[in-house]
Amino acid sequence: MEKMCVKDLYKNFSNFAEKEVTLEGWVRTVRDSKTFGFIELNDGSYFKNVQIVISDKLANFKDLVKLTISSTIKVTGNLIITPNSKQPFEIQATNIQIFNLCDNDYPLQKKRHSFEYLRTIAHLRPRTNTFQAIFRIRSVAAFAIHEYFQKNGYVYVHTPIITCADCEGSAEMFKLTTMDLKHDLPKLEDSQTDFSNDLFGKETYITGSGQLHGETFAASFGKIYTFGPTLRSENSNTKTHANEFWMIEPEISFCDLDELMDIEEDCLKYIVNAVLERCEEEIDFCDKFIENGLKEKLTKLLNSNFIRIDHKEAIDILKKADKKWEFEPDYEEDLAKEHEKYITEYFNGPVFVKNWPKDIKSYYMKLNPDGKTVAAVDLEVPGSGEIMGGSQREENYEKLLERIKEKNMDAKQIDWYLDLRRFGSNIHSGFGLGFERLLMYITGMENIRDVIPFPRTPKNCDF
Amino acid sequence: MEKMCVKDLYKNFSNFAEKEVTLEGWVRTVRDSKTFGFIELNDGSYFKNVQIVISDKLANFKDLVKLTISSTIKVTGNLIITPNSKQPFEIQATNIQIFNLCDNDYPLQKKRHSFEYLRTIAHLRPRTNTFQAIFRIRSVAAFAIHEYFQKNGYVYVHTPIITCADCEGSAEMFKLTTMDLKHDLPKLEDSQTDFSNDLFGKETYITGSGQLHGETFAASFGKIYTFGPTLRSENSNTKTHANEFWMIEPEISFCDLDELMDIEEDCLKYIVNAVLERCEEEIDFCDKFIENGLKEKLTKLLNSNFIRIDHKEAIDILKKADKKWEFEPDYEEDLAKEHEKYITEYFNGPVFVKNWPKDIKSYYMKLNPDGKTVAAVDLEVPGSGEIMGGSQREENYEKLLERIKEKNMDAKQIDWYLDLRRFGSNIHSGFGLGFERLLMYITGMENIRDVIPFPRTPKNCDF
Repeated sequence: MEKMCVKDLYKNFSNFAEKEVTLEGWVRTVRDSKTFGFIELNDGSYFKNVQIVISDKLANFKDLVKLTISSTIKVTGNLIITPNSKQPFEIQATNIQIFNLCDNDYPLQKKRHSFEYLRTIAHLRPRTNTFQAIFRIRSVAAFAIHEYFQKNGYVYVHTPIITCADCEGSAEMFKLTTMDLKHDLPKLEDSQTDFSNDLFGKETYITGSGQLHGETFAASFGKIYTFGPTLRSENSNTKTHANEFWMIEPEISFCDLDELMDIEEDCLKYIVNAVLERCEEEIDFCDKFIENGLKEKLTKLLNSNFIRIDHKEAIDILKKADKKWEFEPDYEEDLAKEHEKYITEYFNGPVFVKNWPKDIKSYYMKLNPDGKTVAAVDLEVPGSGEIMGGSQREENYEKLLERIKEKNMDAKQIDWYLDLRRFGSNIHSGFGLGFERLLMYITGMENIRDVIPFPRTPKNCDF
Repeated sequence: MEKMCVKDLYKNFSNFAEKEVTLEGWVRTVRDSKTFGFIELNDGSYFKNVQIVISDKLANFKDLVKLTISSTIKVTGNLIITPNSKQPFEIQATNIQIFNLCDNDYPLQKKRHSFEYLRTIAHLRPRTNTFQAIFRIRSVAAFAIHEYFQKNGYVYVHTPIITCADCEGSAEMFKLTTMDLKHDLPKLEDSQTDFSNDLFGKETYITGSGQLHGETFAASFGKIYTFGPTLRSENSNTKTHANEFWMIEPEISFCDLDELMDIEEDCLKYIVNAVLERCEEEIDFCDKFIENGLKEKLTKLLNSNFIRIDHKEAIDILKKADKKWEFEPDYEEDLAKEHEKYITEYFNGPVFVKNWPKDIKSYYMKLNPDGKTVAAVDLEVPGSGEIMGGSQREENYEKLLERIKEKNMDAKQIDWYLDLRRFGSNIHSGFGLGFERLLMYITGMENIRDVIPFPRTPKNCDF
């Protein structure tokens, strides 16, 4: 008999009416009276369980009613349509094989556990309803991102994570080594560390961005995207920082800032729409138990046109607001969380804030004709603040070199990046999308630790 | 006017006949006589170029004929169908805007360059025909992998790459640190290194496999896969080793070794078929310039049933062969490259070799009833040898613990992994697919450095 899964049954149960089916999975609950009982079975394929009806006609009925939560069984039985019940069908078991009786110290008993506690059993928490929803949405959203870019002619590039140079300077980069750190490091005669026997023969790091490498491929394929893990060594213990997270970094040749915003808006709507369509049960669950109004928020996003304003205009609005700020709005400064919140509420929807003061932005961003701002853009969304950050890149060799010098960076380390401005330069743009920030927005989860399978944060590298 | 790309034109050129179109891209070649000329334009969207016809009626004709290779231009012109020419259509330019004249020291001139040389300009090599083909196939194959697993109900899991424990022992793992390696490491009183101020407060590594973490999610979602970068610090300079590569690791609950082989075969055929269908020009190019007979090899794979034999049977065949071996075939040993080659030639197709001696395989593999072999399986393909390696996992707590002790590993470090055998254990299996090995097989490329955008190998971390 062909293998069946719970999802297939839910999608086509009428085809199986009165037929024999076989399922394998984990016991979620057992309820019983003397002569019959019910087992809720889940096999991970679907958010909902299947109700299995057992009776004392089964030879092992006495063992079945003693099944512990999360035990594994193989069920054969007849599918019966139940139009008047909560669930559309049930399985009347004719044979149940017990594979593994779950140990009694199983920590996930039938009650609500706190997210903090569940983080201490990260290997088991995906079995709870909440994390079944979160991590299935994570998978569906990841695939939707690939789908969006592939459908639109982008080439997926695996940029390296081991690097010697870096896009933003090395402050937040982890060092990578094969040297023995338990003992003294090898030294040169002048007492400097001798890296010659390290695997790469020099100091190496884990990069915090694939942008520079991505640009080399955009200069060949026109449109590219990256999607991979990013490590940053910030010693920052907040709800929105993790030391390991996933990021998407598209780069587009022959594309200016306006066209970039079109792409960002289109991309975000595609992902949100895909999750709403493909994770109906999961989004309903999140709407009910994690963020009330989530579904409405996401639907509204799909139907809105994103506002586009300059950073200067945003500060104007903030300064005119009848509000006491913790951080005073400033034309030369970044937006604080409270500012982002006010701006999205002011416009009652997503807002692109563009053309930022050059001194608070990266060297590779296109200098505007005013000489003071750069063609950068942050997308702010209601409830979550910034979730995408992009810019038109400086395509002029001389100007880029000047900006690198201003920032006291070593141009020689990235001469290959500068080459792109000598060999076929063009107006081009790109953005970064932090995957976890997006997931927090889509699921309503408030702590980044709860959208990452095994989160890594300062002093925390368990599992 | 809406933006158009070369690919769109090739797919629908008859719709654009006699119409005005606009393209932006890079100049591949310029040929000219006194009053007219031809520019081959490429925008990275498609393997083929578009022929642009220029004449001295264009105001900047004199500049156009001096365009250097890889300069960027914006072309407006009329699309003319050319049924008697090599290319199906051409663009008669009415206006060409020169955006950037490529510098004269551009290293990719119109001749064939060696792969070795091209590795030294890894930031420019994707502009060559060869690497346009290779890296587009890489992107298409990566997406096909996601498609395969998502269509079949697998959940995509981002397992962590920062770890404290590891699946195979720590010999091949990079160390990760935020400590200053340029100076002496901080010491405890007993002269041991003090890791307490390192970001995670202890020694951390980059994992060489996501399997263990993947299994925890398979025990929740039934079927999962990972697809991410893997770092291994092997000091090995061969054509098939890189220190950074991408790997796919599916794990499937309620699945034994036979079912695993079904999945592996189905998955490989899906990927190969997708590449053949979606990269026709690229595969034709590889067939012509990289591996003669490539297309036939791949088509044959699609139509073959993969053979399944025990390791013991493979050794029997090798021992009976009328052949002088460099490494004598041995019932207790791994297969050497020459053995893999012989076996696939013997069966004239892909071969699963299963049930290996336990001492040369990992602790987590299911011990067979004979007590001597484990339920492991390697897939050997003609021309490339092993490209997938999998096993049924030991689901019995006591037996797994025993194997861990035999290998002198610290069970405590992976108590969470052992928990899976106490809480809802089931017969489950998984495999690993090295993405670059697969790409070498699909493209015919012989060096792993030539299928990775920016390869990392011992003493080589440029760009």
